[in-house]
Amino acid sequence: MLHAVIMAGGAGTRFWPASRRSRPKQFLSLTDGTPLLRATFDRVAPLTSPNGLWIVTARDTAEATRRLLPELPPGHVLAEPVGRDTAACAGYAATVVLHIDPDAVCVVLPADHVIPDQEAVRDALSAGAAHVAEHGGLLTFGIRPTRPETGYGYLKLGRLHGTRRGHKIHVLDRFVEKPDLATARTYAAGSDYLWNSGMFAWRASDLLDEIARQLPLLAAGLDRIAAGLGSPGADALLATVYPNLPRTSVDYGIMESARSAWTVPVDFQWSDVGAWPALAEVLPPDEDGNVRRGRVLALDSAGNVMIGDGPAIVVAGVEDLVIVATPDAVLVIPQDQAQRVKEIVSHLAAAGWDDLL
Amino acid sequence: MLHAVIMAGGAGTRFWPASRRSRPKQFLSLTDGTPLLRATFDRVAPLTSPNGLWIVTARDTAEATRRLLPELPPGHVLAEPVGRDTAACAGYAATVVLHIDPDAVCVVLPADHVIPDQEAVRDALSAGAAHVAEHGGLLTFGIRPTRPETGYGYLKLGRLHGTRRGHKIHVLDRFVEKPDLATARTYAAGSDYLWNSGMFAWRASDLLDEIARQLPLLAAGLDRIAAGLGSPGADALLATVYPNLPRTSVDYGIMESARSAWTVPVDFQWSDVGAWPALAEVLPPDEDGNVRRGRVLALDSAGNVMIGDGPAIVVAGVEDLVIVATPDAVLVIPQDQAQRVKEIVSHLAAAGWDDLL
Repeated sequence: MLHAVIMAGGAGTRFWPASRRSRPKQFLSLTDGTPLLRATFDRVAPLTSPNGLWIVTARDTAEATRRLLPELPPGHVLAEPVGRDTAACAGYAATVVLHIDPDAVCVVLPADHVIPDQEAVRDALSAGAAHVAEHGGLLTFGIRPTRPETGYGYLKLGRLHGTRRGHKIHVLDRFVEKPDLATARTYAAGSDYLWNSGMFAWRASDLLDEIARQLPLLAAGLDRIAAGLGSPGADALLATVYPNLPRTSVDYGIMESARSAWTVPVDFQWSDVGAWPALAEVLPPDEDGNVRRGRVLALDSAGNVMIGDGPAIVVAGVEDLVIVATPDAVLVIPQDQAQRVKEIVSHLAAAGWDDLL
Repeated sequence: MLHAVIMAGGAGTRFWPASRRSRPKQFLSLTDGTPLLRATFDRVAPLTSPNGLWIVTARDTAEATRRLLPELPPGHVLAEPVGRDTAACAGYAATVVLHIDPDAVCVVLPADHVIPDQEAVRDALSAGAAHVAEHGGLLTFGIRPTRPETGYGYLKLGRLHGTRRGHKIHVLDRFVEKPDLATARTYAAGSDYLWNSGMFAWRASDLLDEIARQLPLLAAGLDRIAAGLGSPGADALLATVYPNLPRTSVDYGIMESARSAWTVPVDFQWSDVGAWPALAEVLPPDEDGNVRRGRVLALDSAGNVMIGDGPAIVVAGVEDLVIVATPDAVLVIPQDQAQRVKEIVSHLAAAGWDDLL
């Protein structure tokens, strides 16, 4: 059976002040009024039955997740005691899924990306899942670059293995860290490099086999968790074991050295909306290049991202700023420094302004 | 008897979004938590008895004025049906005061200036009042310039007439419009030019005599108002007559051509705080030149005015901006464009955002 696992472990820092600890990015409606997690859920729900839908999230946001997705069966919100990166997250989900379905095939995807064309992504996920169901191995989806983006990691395509439902299936050559601009330009001009979408497909058993082979400490922890599943002490066991799981990513911790790794090139519109300026990718700017949401009045101002989550925003004569206004906090920062929002949040914590976190 | 008349007719545009129609500048606490009108009242109250204290304000803010100054006797808040500039305002106050005190001497001052040294200003006002009580004429107070300010009008000193309680009393030569920077530099370097403070002293009868001589239409209107004072139809008469009074200032409409005009140089700290950047004159900036009020976190940012009236303000990497945050509206504008706030408010009105006015 196909299972869809949504990784919803965001910490709520990069979109401060809209995002908070108790309302991380996946609960925000960055584009059309639908929280990103809700949109992601609706995107994959048609692929399987309700019993095949899973969310992995932080303990603090588990209850809010259940409220947002009331149709999810009880027990299908998996609460991580602490975040330990994607290898632990995916391994934990595979462990739980395998416990009830020995033949489980999983598609695994982040909760907080924006993909307008839902049919296209479902079509690709289905093709990838069908491929790994037949051939095994770990599969990742790569987005064909539309610009020389330096903010994303890339996948290098290996040889073409074949096609499945119209999708080309390649061997994955390797993962590539975020490139400089010159390198990104060659990637965008060619066809061998794809944006790393963070979406995967595998048989749950294949993922756990690779973890056992490459990450024995993670495998041992997951084995302990598996042994407790369904018992009264499962939660306490999870709380004991999980914080000690090794912290690594699926990409570099597992797939990079997997015995069999695939990638499927896709070309639907996709954005991971990694920081405020990325909103320009998913919200159409006005004629002055201003991205606006909420009540905004802009005179002689261009290239700004202005998000009024409550208060109106009124500007004149400003350029290339990010301005976000919520009822209790306002952020103003140049677009080219918007990566500093995470640092800003740590300053707020240091200042003891816990009510704003 | 000495009367102190506070002109409190502000429209609430230049300090938007902190100031609103229903809460113009004189109700704001720009410096120390005390509304400017309250501080002005407390400044002059020791000069006279409660029966000598008067506020002229707009009809819409009369009730808020009474709440702010509960010790003011009933009838001492004079509500203008519409604003008609300072000549009408001062003439109306003189008319009312003269009705109950034929020998009234008035000091007249704006409600929304910042003067930290209350003793010094009272001392100067007393000296000026004593001078006009004896010699008649219209008297204005001039601040010795401490910098080449191009945002203020100036007074040119005439010959020294004498001294009163340690204050020099000069003949007023003339009023000077806001100068360019080169001219302002010569003014600041010399001793013949003073900042026009907008504070005055005169016998009420002398002001009305000058109005009768120079502004017959204003005099005729004030005569009609005077005739109705104390009658049941006084308010209705005021509402009929006032909107048709000629619109001119005390400075250019009356004093410039008065038969006898005086000026008293003073050197206490004074600011008319005409727009957001002027807050730097009255709120000490931090080591980065940032003026802050409310909860503000500023990283690598300099020369900003940041006023958090409710929401916290968090910035990084921004310079020379005015950022004002209230619960329902946020303003971001470069300091050198802060004069545009009035224009911005007219855009809000045109957009129909009446809740923000």
